[in-house]
Amino acid sequence: MKAATDMCRIAAYTGPEIPLENIIVRPTHSLLAQSQHANEAKLTVNGDGFGISWYGADTAPGLYRDVLPAWADENLTNLCRMVHSRLFIAHIRASTVGETSRANCHPFKFGKWSFCHNGQIPHFRTIRRRMLAALPDHLFEAMQGTTDSEMIFFTLLANGLEADPAAAMRATLAQIGPAGDNGPIKITCVFSDGETLFAFRHATAGNAPSLYASGVLDNGGRSLASEPLCGTAARWSAIPTDTICAMTVAGVKTLDGLVAA
Amino acid sequence: MKAATDMCRIAAYTGPEIPLENIIVRPTHSLLAQSQHANEAKLTVNGDGFGISWYGADTAPGLYRDVLPAWADENLTNLCRMVHSRLFIAHIRASTVGETSRANCHPFKFGKWSFCHNGQIPHFRTIRRRMLAALPDHLFEAMQGTTDSEMIFFTLLANGLEADPAAAMRATLAQIGPAGDNGPIKITCVFSDGETLFAFRHATAGNAPSLYASGVLDNGGRSLASEPLCGTAARWSAIPTDTICAMTVAGVKTLDGLVAA
Amino acid sequence: MKAATDMCRIAAYTGPEIPLENIIVRPTHSLLAQSQHANEAKLTVNGDGFGISWYGADTAPGLYRDVLPAWADENLTNLCRMVHSRLFIAHIRASTVGETSRANCHPFKFGKWSFCHNGQIPHFRTIRRRMLAALPDHLFEAMQGTTDSEMIFFTLLANGLEADPAAAMRATLAQIGPAGDNGPIKITCVFSDGETLFAFRHATAGNAPSLYASGVLDNGGRSLASEPLCGTAARWSAIPTDTICAMTVAGVKTLDGLVAA
Amino acid sequence: MKAATDMCRIAAYTGPEIPLENIIVRPTHSLLAQSQHANEAKLTVNGDGFGISWYGADTAPGLYRDVLPAWADENLTNLCRMVHSRLFIAHIRASTVGETSRANCHPFKFGKWSFCHNGQIPHFRTIRRRMLAALPDHLFEAMQGTTDSEMIFFTLLANGLEADPAAAMRATLAQIGPAGDNGPIKITCVFSDGETLFAFRHATAGNAPSLYASGVLDNGGRSLASEPLCGTAARWSAIPTDTICAMTVAGVKTLDGLVAA
Repeated sequence: MKAATDMCRIAAYTGPEIPLENIIVRPTHSLLAQSQHANEAKLTVNGDGFGISWYGADTAPGLYRDVLPAWADENLTNLCRMVHSRLFIAHIRASTVGETSRANCHPFKFGKWSFCHNGQIPHFRTIRRRMLAALPDHLFEAMQGTTDSEMIFFTLLANGLEADPAAAMRATLAQIGPAGDNGPIKITCVFSDGETLFAFRHATAGNAPSLYASGVLDNGGRSLASEPLCGTAARWSAIPTDTICAMTVAGVKTLDGLVAA
Repeated sequence: MKAATDMCRIAAYTGPEIPLENIIVRPTHSLLAQSQHANEAKLTVNGDGFGISWYGADTAPGLYRDVLPAWADENLTNLCRMVHSRLFIAHIRASTVGETSRANCHPFKFGKWSFCHNGQIPHFRTIRRRMLAALPDHLFEAMQGTTDSEMIFFTLLANGLEADPAAAMRATLAQIGPAGDNGPIKITCVFSDGETLFAFRHATAGNAPSLYASGVLDNGGRSLASEPLCGTAARWSAIPTDTICAMTVAGVKTLDGLVAA
Repeated sequence: MKAATDMCRIAAYTGPEIPLENIIVRPTHSLLAQSQHANEAKLTVNGDGFGISWYGADTAPGLYRDVLPAWADENLTNLCRMVHSRLFIAHIRASTVGETSRANCHPFKFGKWSFCHNGQIPHFRTIRRRMLAALPDHLFEAMQGTTDSEMIFFTLLANGLEADPAAAMRATLAQIGPAGDNGPIKITCVFSDGETLFAFRHATAGNAPSLYASGVLDNGGRSLASEPLCGTAARWSAIPTDTICAMTVAGVKTLDGLVAA
Repeated sequence: MKAATDMCRIAAYTGPEIPLENIIVRPTHSLLAQSQHANEAKLTVNGDGFGISWYGADTAPGLYRDVLPAWADENLTNLCRMVHSRLFIAHIRASTVGETSRANCHPFKFGKWSFCHNGQIPHFRTIRRRMLAALPDHLFEAMQGTTDSEMIFFTLLANGLEADPAAAMRATLAQIGPAGDNGPIKITCVFSDGETLFAFRHATAGNAPSLYASGVLDNGGRSLASEPLCGTAARWSAIPTDTICAMTVAGVKTLDGLVAA
């Protein structure tokens, strides 16, 4: 049903076309390395699946997800070496409960959008029916899995992600409502329409899962990552909370003010 | 979302404890053989997963499901050789569309019940929201996949399967409603509470997927199968439509009259 | 250990960069379609894994293999849509015995070479030790699986595939020796160094598994396939037996005379 | 090719028939728990597959192996709950290099024997050809994977494991020879013929991977485990090195003296 807070790792990139491996495999502290020895994660195990969405000539992103631990997958290393992309998002998932299935692996995809999430709605069980009922038919039918993460994504789409990401996020947080008794809501997510990388961090208490924006990389691109990818940029700055950050090659800006109080 | 009519194979058994393989692997026309050369199926490919539920000392059945084609799975052949059971249901699934996941493999399980299905609600897309909304919370939360088959099972449970299987089936068919424009509803299912094997066939037009009840097997047990399992019983008779058949070692009887008009 | 004769399907392409799906998915009688309804195969089931090798900027090809039936794999369809390549080989495998593992899926890869095979050495069991012992250390160590197909590939490499493909094939057939009592040796294989597509058919008795070369495709490229890919070229001609055919965009030529008597 | 030293976890049992879960899942510090938070392992990740061999009425053990991390597998938890056995061996594998495949998961099985291993022959690459060549045909043909562990098992069988386990181990260690430049040979293994549980620890330098023998468990059985399974026995004692220990319900004894100097 859910992955516990801080247990996933995210890396994303926008800039000149590069092999996926330049972000996912090659940096000293790459996403692959983080999946085995994360410095800032509570659990050092990230073995419940991974996924990549990447953009090319098509509007719709490519999507590659599997339930095997990332470090055991020769397909992944080949894909990362051969596929070049100007914008991509990668995610490694850990979950201590429930079944692992491809449908529950991030990123999720709908049309031109892809989305991944690190965090948790601890009381998701109590609001899932209500949120599912609020989706319009075409989004309800497109959902494949059972995670809170996928529900946040589809609710964002229902709330007008295309027209106004900040307003969509405000409406989505309102629908989720206040935290329940199981603990604070924590949401750190990265998503894209194929042109811009959006990042958002939020926690009703405590810290939202970490997410950093790189400065300009050696090759002129920019990156987002749960933990700085050593050796690819001098400067990494923490994504602020409660405001959507929009990253393009030109830079990072925040969208219209606070998304949540 | 669904498996097309006639594309799955079912075999079930009740009687003295036997190794699962005596039904699933050993008969000349075993379930495993049927998965590769089905005589009565439209498609000769049954390669999208399989599963077994079996009953022992516990009330809750054991469940083993995987997405690999049955004939490639050494675990399955070992399990079938080593595990003995007094009542079990096995299913091989084929689907030409959509993703294969364990959560969509039959049998489905809830408490002491397990259920598998061969057939299709072609207009399931248009009634899924309504049926999902009608489930009580504890059943809503227990659903793991997205198939029409799992929905039929949980709706049966919601409609009082425990107290009155025939009434539950009538109510469930009423909730499903008339066939849509995509073709007739076809339901052939086998389910159990660990004591009795229930079988049901129904089609709004054309033939319901085949299902046969054996006479007394060599070892004193009885069996249900999509196609007769050669060499295990002299006589196999087709399960009638629109009435629930209840099979125990003692014999097969129909429950209270017609389930559907 | 082996796949029976005629049970695999192959498709390959060289020419202007195209999405892999233009050969693997889109043609009316595509590789994906062939895997479910092959016209010329003995078995209509091709569900024991598949793989693709493709060439890009790197010398070493990309390799993607999985044991799930091709038609159930969303990763495959995404990969085929997004990845463009100037030369690639795709293979769908069927095997009725033995375990399915990625290491036994085609194509196999070594350095710049990739290789796939449809056919069988029925007495492989009796010659495997001898052939394995004949490999130089660096090839012995690179073998990952247990199939006759991979052994043929590595023996070709040991016999100088780089310098003289026809001589390497002659030496390899000599090492395999005459057919044993289990039936004729049948070899239909497609392999590449990233520049040329090589094709070879051979049978000690009966017909070698089918393989066709296309004329010039609509886009100026050329293709090899177990069965003609409808709608992509007007003319398909059967690859002759016992001679290596070398296909480039410029055309198809045979290498120096007969490879086997 | 191999799993690094200390990275796998083993648990085994002999005694009155119990559900597998009583050893694998239920103890506070069960094998499943150890796979996520091993106290004595170098790496806290044990996510590259697992397996169980268990003995029942048949001479040949049942074997269940999969490459998914143990904690994600509903089949495993069901199997452990439902299957009762009087003698079984379970293993969780971790490997940082190479492909994960079922054929490389422990336990390995041949006839009535099953075998699992925690440790490493660091120079295995340089002796593999020699050891493979030394196997008689029937054992050579039965090998399925590429690990040093499986090679140790089959070499033990070739050296007369049936007649004299200690002599077979001496001969096997002699064939392996001295450690190479990559580090010391470390072997901790557990194996059985269905009647006795054998345990052996050996290291050419440093410590052999841990292995403990329980005293009499609450139910009258006995257990072997990489780390004591809390709550199942008061006393656990380390298996000594360089001598084969034979465990039955009656107790643990060492076989004839030192196996290695």
